[in-house]
Amino acid sequence: MLGRGYEDQNCSAARALEVVGERWSILILRDALFRGITQFSDFQRSLGIATNVLAKRLDGFVSEGLLEKSDGDGTYRPTERALDFKPVIMALTAWGDRWATPGGPPVTFRHQGCGGEVRLALACSACGTEPTLSDTLAVPNVARQ
Amino acid sequence: MLGRGYEDQNCSAARALEVVGERWSILILRDALFRGITQFSDFQRSLGIATNVLAKRLDGFVSEGLLEKSDGDGTYRPTERALDFKPVIMALTAWGDRWATPGGPPVTFRHQGCGGEVRLALACSACGTEPTLSDTLAVPNVARQ
Repeated sequence: MLGRGYEDQNCSAARALEVVGERWSILILRDALFRGITQFSDFQRSLGIATNVLAKRLDGFVSEGLLEKSDGDGTYRPTERALDFKPVIMALTAWGDRWATPGGPPVTFRHQGCGGEVRLALACSACGTEPTLSDTLAVPNVARQ
Repeated sequence: MLGRGYEDQNCSAARALEVVGERWSILILRDALFRGITQFSDFQRSLGIATNVLAKRLDGFVSEGLLEKSDGDGTYRPTERALDFKPVIMALTAWGDRWATPGGPPVTFRHQGCGGEVRLALACSACGTEPTLSDTLAVPNVARQ
């Protein structure tokens, strides 16, 4: 459905979604990254999806270099490429908490060191303040256009 | 395809994706939020998708309260609910820049006030440090489980 027009978009967000744009995939990554799930049976129990669908998604993540499958115990462990996806899930969660989840957040992100709540913040490298969302714009890098 | 099992997931990230989980939708939001596009014809030019697909997505965003359509000039403008989605697109972009975009980032996020580069950072509410990704865990809120 997305076709060529989509692939032509010179946009890193679009490319990221090419890799992990399917919703079960996000939930599998969530379980791997934030819940420490490594076993096929535990993913299956957490998500309640058909085993053939789960197997296909896990194999896909191994091919994409997001999960590594152990030759020994058959566990799936997230790579650095997957770890870097944590902020995407945190940002999706924050939006969902505010706008799509009646009854309050199901989970809170916490700092393992001190137990404090962890949130995503905007940080300006130049002035050191936290810019507002309205004041954050996307500027094309001319050399790339 | 996602079916009931998916909807049963008590997860704000999953719920957020229910609203904006389709890839063209993310690109439409990107154009509305970061490129200031408001006109149907400009969305069409930017994305190169069929007008019937675009019309359906824009109408969907109006129904979901992410865009407001002006009775006067017919422009589509993002609501606060949409503005709050900016960090999701920034996080997707950061991941794509690092892991899926050969040749460097197509855009940089900049602070309108000072021109500095804006990035997403983790912030701990308790100790004031920036936690690592590995040290950021999701803890269920017991009252919700």
